[in-house]
Parts: sequence; structure tokens; C-alpha cells
Amino acid sequence: MRTVEWDAGTVKMIDQRLLPTEYKVVTFRDVEGVATSIREMVVRGAPAIGATAAFGLALAAHTSAAADVHALRRDLEAAAAQLRVTRPTAVNLFWAIDRMLDRAFNDDLDTVEAIRHTLQVEAQEIADEDVRVNRRMGDIGQEVIRDGDHILTHCNAGALATVDYGTVLGVVRAAVEHGKSVHVWVDETRPRLQGARLTAWELMRDHIPCTLIADNAAGHLMRTGKVDIVLYGADRVAANGDVANKVGSYKLAVVARENGIPCFCVSPTSTIDMSLAHGDDIPIEERDPEEVTVIRGQRIAPEGVPVANIAFDVTPHRYLSGIITERGIASPPVGLSLRRIMGAGPA
Amino acid sequence: MRTVEWDAGTVKMIDQRLLPTEYKVVTFRDVEGVATSIREMVVRGAPAIGATAAFGLALAAHTSAAADVHALRRDLEAAAAQLRVTRPTAVNLFWAIDRMLDRAFNDDLDTVEAIRHTLQVEAQEIADEDVRVNRRMGDIGQEVIRDGDHILTHCNAGALATVDYGTVLGVVRAAVEHGKSVHVWVDETRPRLQGARLTAWELMRDHIPCTLIADNAAGHLMRTGKVDIVLYGADRVAANGDVANKVGSYKLAVVARENGIPCFCVSPTSTIDMSLAHGDDIPIEERDPEEVTVIRGQRIAPEGVPVANIAFDVTPHRYLSGIITERGIASPPVGLSLRRIMGAGPA
Repeated sequence: MRTVEWDAGTVKMIDQRLLPTEYKVVTFRDVEGVATSIREMVVRGAPAIGATAAFGLALAAHTSAAADVHALRRDLEAAAAQLRVTRPTAVNLFWAIDRMLDRAFNDDLDTVEAIRHTLQVEAQEIADEDVRVNRRMGDIGQEVIRDGDHILTHCNAGALATVDYGTVLGVVRAAVEHGKSVHVWVDETRPRLQGARLTAWELMRDHIPCTLIADNAAGHLMRTGKVDIVLYGADRVAANGDVANKVGSYKLAVVARENGIPCFCVSPTSTIDMSLAHGDDIPIEERDPEEVTVIRGQRIAPEGVPVANIAFDVTPHRYLSGIITERGIASPPVGLSLRRIMGAGPA
Repeated sequence: MRTVEWDAGTVKMIDQRLLPTEYKVVTFRDVEGVATSIREMVVRGAPAIGATAAFGLALAAHTSAAADVHALRRDLEAAAAQLRVTRPTAVNLFWAIDRMLDRAFNDDLDTVEAIRHTLQVEAQEIADEDVRVNRRMGDIGQEVIRDGDHILTHCNAGALATVDYGTVLGVVRAAVEHGKSVHVWVDETRPRLQGARLTAWELMRDHIPCTLIADNAAGHLMRTGKVDIVLYGADRVAANGDVANKVGSYKLAVVARENGIPCFCVSPTSTIDMSLAHGDDIPIEERDPEEVTVIRGQRIAPEGVPVANIAFDVTPHRYLSGIITERGIASPPVGLSLRRIMGAGPA
């Protein structure tokens, strides 16, 4: 199944916290449940979070007791407010909510049923569009991969981070579909271990050769010539091309440049936030210290130790070889390329 | 107690695999047990490994059934061979074994008892010397720490990595003893989590302010001005100043330099291997994949996933602000400074 789906008045998703040891699909019947699923990372990955929030609003419309469009719109605004506070960094959350509210507030819709129907169709379109966009990004992005390449990736920017196919793993899958032989170094990606748990699982299911490493080993591999290209996703891209992504990405980009290894971000345009001038404006989420001190129920640090659990970091655009989008590759100067791609014209 | 001690014909050590949840002292009565303790990381840290190997040889002499010095020396050579194959990277292991064998083969020793006694005294001297050296390194090294500094460290180069006091944490302790107020960012240090388990534990016991982070977060902290200095230890330093240390150190050094943050290695001269011209000659240990895929009994990756568990990496000397030794700080050009410190004169 897809990472997240609408199913007869419910939202179903794969519980990504349990993978790879357990594959379980969970069902949500109200927007509170969907909001919790985002906050607690049942679902994660910027595009997947966007689609989930869209389905959450469709569900809010579906379950609302509102008797008229004004009351329904108030319910939707309350649902949107609940969803907005779940996670601060991934911009797809806000992008999808805004797009859904924009539809809901369309003056042409004058019945509760019309709004409900429109939101369900729109959420489905956001999900379907994500898959089409990933396929297109894969086709475009696979051109940077050469036959025989060893690709290093961080976190999970795969089918599970999106509705299907993936951003980074979409590029990898497209390269394989184009007949290229590749091998992927998988950063385990502490603290939540999305690389070890999700990326390795996806690649093994697709029989794409991969090797799991502790994040700390990536530098050694790059310095000793074992990595040909670094690819990672994005949770939010600023207008100048600075990229917020899973914490640890920044170190990879710096060490890649130091070793003459190309480093690309793979990001749909839905993750690009032209309203922020540069990456230091992107809010960086800090999460529960127990994500660092407890691993699968096992305590690995002294009781009471202070912890900073920073979930994302910012890679300044100068370290990137480019940003692969579904509208082409934004090459350096990335900010200028992004303005062209996003149709904003020169500043 | 000290990390490792001789006690009435046995070798006692703190079982570092169990910290911080359990503090347990284990006793070994033969050299096989001591070799296993090194291989399985009951004891770890280059200087601690050196002292443990020395005590292991003292124990081999103590337990040998040899009736004459020739037979005893054969037993000692066999014991040394067992110890040499436990871990390849930390040079203190080989340094201590060579120093002990050198004593055992001294022509002045003409009885089994004389050799036994000499080796016990020599092992104790290696251990005591390590503590004195750490104190001296601390006094010298604390000069690079300013009042109010935020120090980032990797792995455990503390009392537990040595016989007592520590190399990096010796410098930190000396800075505190000199009245400086400091705060330590502790890299958790995957895969074996020596930072989370051991460094955090040591610092908390000494009431030195610290904050635990996932290794991935170090880049963000450096880029956003939260780190004043990076300090890490060494498992082996080559003649040109290249440093092999716990995997992940290299990335830190590159990102520190990129952000104008000083990065020092703290290493006693017993860890400096003047026989190797540069770091790429240092053997890099690869360890059991389960160190990556299983954490405290909990599986965190798919069954059957290929793993590269690289235990160390090499920081080329050009990234280091200097190497702090008990004979002074080897400043850039580090290779030249090391030749002076090691008394080898210009090449």
C-alpha cells in the first residue's frame, strides 16, 4: 500500500515506528488521531506529512457535525490549527494545509457536502501528485547517477517519506530502472534511526544493494574514495537554496565538498519555501530527550543527563552541487535557479 | 578505583560494557581472560588497553608453570601473541607489550622469580606513569581552554579510557581545577555509545556541566556558534601528525575547521607511532556488524542487512590545531613539532 491513504471515511497509514521488525497499518477516524500520528512520527518525511495533513482535513470535513458552510469552515480552521502545531520544520505540512483551506474557502462551494467532496478530491490529488512528482524527479535526477556509483544517503527519503516511490530513493530507483548498477551506503541516522529501520528495509525489498553504517563512518568512506555521490532530501528549502534536512546532513555536505564528492538535495517544489530568504529563518525542531537516551526501551545514558535533541540542521547552499526538483535541477547559483524554477523571476 | 588494577595475582577492571546502568568490577586470573576483555571491550581506550596488556603479561608470568627463564620467556611470547591480535588500531597495546617483553628479556634477569617480579613492577609503573602523564597533559592542555568555553568531545577519552584522570577529560578536569567554568557537548558516539554511556557518566560524577547529543547534531552546534573548541583523543598518531581516533572524529575536525573552531587531539606520547609515516598506514579495525544492528539486545535494522562497522577513522594533520602531549603541544606543522617532542630530530 501507499504510505498514507484515504479509505472509506478513514485515513490509513503504515506505522513507521514499528518497522522493520513489524509491518502494521493503523487507521484514524478523526483529525486528532491524524495530528497525533504526525507529532509522534507514525508518519514522517516532508511530502508524506503534507499528504497526511491533507487527508486529515478531508477527514475533519467528513466527520464534522456542522450544519452549514460557515460552521464547517470554522471546524476546518480548528482542525488546521491542530495540524499546524504538530511539527515546525517540514514546510509541506503548511503548504498542504493552506492548499486545502484555500479550496474549502472557495466561494463557489455553497454546501457542506460540496466542501466535503472537494476536500476529499483535493487531498487525493495532493497524494497522487506527490507520486507523479517523485517519478518525474526520479527521471530527471537519475542523470546525475553513473553506472557503478556508490551513493551515500541520510535518513529516509524513500517511498515511506512520501506517498510512494520516494525523493532520493526515487532517484535511486529511476537509476536502476535505467539499467544502472548502484550501491547505497545507508546512514543509520540517529536518533530515530530512519536509515537503519526504513531506508535499509526499502532497499532490501527492492533488491538494491546497500550497506548500513553508523553515521560516524560516512566521513571515513568519503575520505577513502568509497563514495561517489551524496543524496539527501529536504524538510524545507529556503529561497536562496539553503536546505533544512534531518540533522547530520550538514556535516555530510561539508565533508563531501572537502573530498570533491558531489552532494545533491532531492526536493519537490512543494518543499521549497520562497517566503524565507535563507536557511537561518527555518524553524528547527527540538524533540524529546528520550529519543537520544532510550533506544527501543533500553536506556543508553545516565539518568538525568541533559540532552539537546536537535532534529534538523541547515546546509548552506554553497555546499550543494544542486537541488533536484520535478521541474529540473537547480544548479549553482542555486538561489537564482530556484527563482527561475519557481517562476518568481529575478528578485 | 582505577580503570584497571593489579590485585594479589589477579587483574581487576571496571566492566565498561555495563555502564552507566551497572557498575561492576570483574577479576581475571589468566592472560586469556585479559585478552578477551580487551577484544570484547570490557576495557577500552588506547592508554587503558596498554596498561591492561601490561598487567596481562605480568599475570602470564605470575601464572606460568615454567621452571626456567627460557620456558617463561616462551610463555610470555605466547601470551604477547594472544594480546597482540585483540585490537589492531590502538598502538598503546603494542607499545606496552614491547616494553614488557623488553624487560622480560633483559639479560640481568636470571631467575623465573626475578622476571615475575620485574614484570609486575613494570606493569604497575606503566599504569602509574599513565596517571602522571595525564595530569601533566591536563596542566599543559588546559591552557587552550578559556573560561566559559563550550567544549565538544567525541567518544570517551576520560578516566575510563586511561588508568585514571583521562586525556581529553584530563584537560577538562585541569581547566576546572584552574577555576575555569566550562560546559561539555558530549557526542553519544555510535555505535558503541561511549560518549552517552561513559563520558556523560564521568562528567556528571564530577559535576562538570554537560549536554548529550546525537553525533549528527554536532554540525548544527558548530555552525550556529555553540561550540568554542573540539577536543578528542587518539588511538594512534602517525609521525606526520595524522590521528586515528574513534570513527566520526574526522568529520568533526573538517566541520570545525570550516567554522573556524580550534580542534585539538589530546594524546600521550605512548600513543604516537613514529614508525608510521602517515595516517593511511594505520590499520583500521572493522568490528562485529551487530554493534550497529543491535543496541542493548534490541534489533534496529532489518535481518540480513549488510553492514560496514568501521571502528576508527583518520584525521589528516592539516585539520588539527595541535596535538596536546605530556611534553608540550605539537603545533602546526605538527609533524615537525612531533619530531622535536619525540626527540627524533629533523627527518
